[in-house]
Amino acid sequence: MPHDIDLSRTTVWTRRYGDDAGAPQGPWNETIARLLGHRSVRAYARQAPPPGTLETLIAAAQSAATSSNLQTWSVIAVDDKDARAALAAIANDQAHVAQCPIFLVWLADLSRLQRLGTANGARLEGLDYLEMFLVAAIDAALAAQNAVVAAESLGLATVYIGALRNDVRRVAALLGLPPGAAPVFGLCIGYEAAGAAAEVKPRLPQDVVLHRGRYAAHDEAARIADYDRILAGFSLRNEMSNEGWTKRVLARVGSVAALRGRDALRAALAALGFPLR
Amino acid sequence: MPHDIDLSRTTVWTRRYGDDAGAPQGPWNETIARLLGHRSVRAYARQAPPPGTLETLIAAAQSAATSSNLQTWSVIAVDDKDARAALAAIANDQAHVAQCPIFLVWLADLSRLQRLGTANGARLEGLDYLEMFLVAAIDAALAAQNAVVAAESLGLATVYIGALRNDVRRVAALLGLPPGAAPVFGLCIGYEAAGAAAEVKPRLPQDVVLHRGRYAAHDEAARIADYDRILAGFSLRNEMSNEGWTKRVLARVGSVAALRGRDALRAALAALGFPLR
Repeated sequence: MPHDIDLSRTTVWTRRYGDDAGAPQGPWNETIARLLGHRSVRAYARQAPPPGTLETLIAAAQSAATSSNLQTWSVIAVDDKDARAALAAIANDQAHVAQCPIFLVWLADLSRLQRLGTANGARLEGLDYLEMFLVAAIDAALAAQNAVVAAESLGLATVYIGALRNDVRRVAALLGLPPGAAPVFGLCIGYEAAGAAAEVKPRLPQDVVLHRGRYAAHDEAARIADYDRILAGFSLRNEMSNEGWTKRVLARVGSVAALRGRDALRAALAALGFPLR
Repeated sequence: MPHDIDLSRTTVWTRRYGDDAGAPQGPWNETIARLLGHRSVRAYARQAPPPGTLETLIAAAQSAATSSNLQTWSVIAVDDKDARAALAAIANDQAHVAQCPIFLVWLADLSRLQRLGTANGARLEGLDYLEMFLVAAIDAALAAQNAVVAAESLGLATVYIGALRNDVRRVAALLGLPPGAAPVFGLCIGYEAAGAAAEVKPRLPQDVVLHRGRYAAHDEAARIADYDRILAGFSLRNEMSNEGWTKRVLARVGSVAALRGRDALRAALAALGFPLR
């Protein structure tokens, strides 16, 4: 069920940036407060959203910008229990992939344009390039994020599942993807399980990611030290850990093994019909 | 200035999917109506948004999901006139890049993690892989889309500028990017110029992009023929053209020349510190 959310601007802002971040001075409204209140949720109630919810979310997704209106993405709603279990296993056994009421697999999809070319006797040379895969992945991300915003506006919770990329060939086989279509991530949607609510996760100080005029990283080390302390506090209250950001980053990208098979993504995409020239 | 928008669900739905699309049955609210009412805008008034707007939008961006909380994106707000003119030139002389009140360049940014590794005496092997560039590009897209939703909720208009990828090396030089950071797209933000408003652009029928259980393209050709007619009508009313979708697609991806330099993206990213293994 949707939680009551405190939408006051100082509360929302300090949850996101820490208690010392001060109050924001800019324009504000309820949509922005809800965007700032986003949390990824990994425990879902059984209750299904009302009929028509999926179609509403996909209409929001299709309304996002798409490069040159090429619409180089597709999405598959997966209900079948066995398929869900197989996808959960690919995603490091994340149980919510099997359990959430709506599970979507978002695709970078150049296959539709390829079919259009074939039907018109045209070889679409541009599709072989890294650029067009990137267009498709970005299109899919913009669309999915609109679906997330729409879902959260309806009191639903979500979490992206990047771990589908652990084995994109197996995902493609499970879902019957044609050449030129590849999964970029999954998305769980549903109501948050009672008692599961955690705090909003703090992010890096804004001046670490926002640059003015030119890229400038001069204060970064001190600012990240601040953030390490803020995130360690969050972890202690919510995750029975006391790890800051630095330690997590080093563990997550410090070795090829930590990529969990995604070091083979380039070869796997080639096998799915993306030469990435 | 913000336009008054008709948020009734049948109006919003038929603008997006055409007059024959019928009324939606699912849940609905004003946030969803505004998402469905998105239009990319390429003509901006001079009026600047209120102070603090940029910081509000970036807070919304940072609140989007980010893979493993790695936060592998950054954004640069470019105000300098000469830099704007240079960016507009790279982007096929799109005048709105020079003229909009806020122009943002969104970066796939692994350089911050690299600096963190260096400061901690660790070589972060994972960063060399295509997977991590994709994570960074998707992180940037999710963040940017939240900024777009926030901007539109404030009555502002936006348009993404993918054409910055025509020459990512030149963009990187202009903005002083460190190795491991690359522009993925730009974003114009401002109030729409008076008299510039166009219709909402129709998208493909929903069942062409939304699949159930497995990928299925069986009705696709007929559905795309419908869409060609709908888009030709839109073009005639808004763009003094009568091109459908098929013709545009074939022109846009039918040749390497149409990529306008983006066929060299892979080599350019390598030069910017992304080996994409």
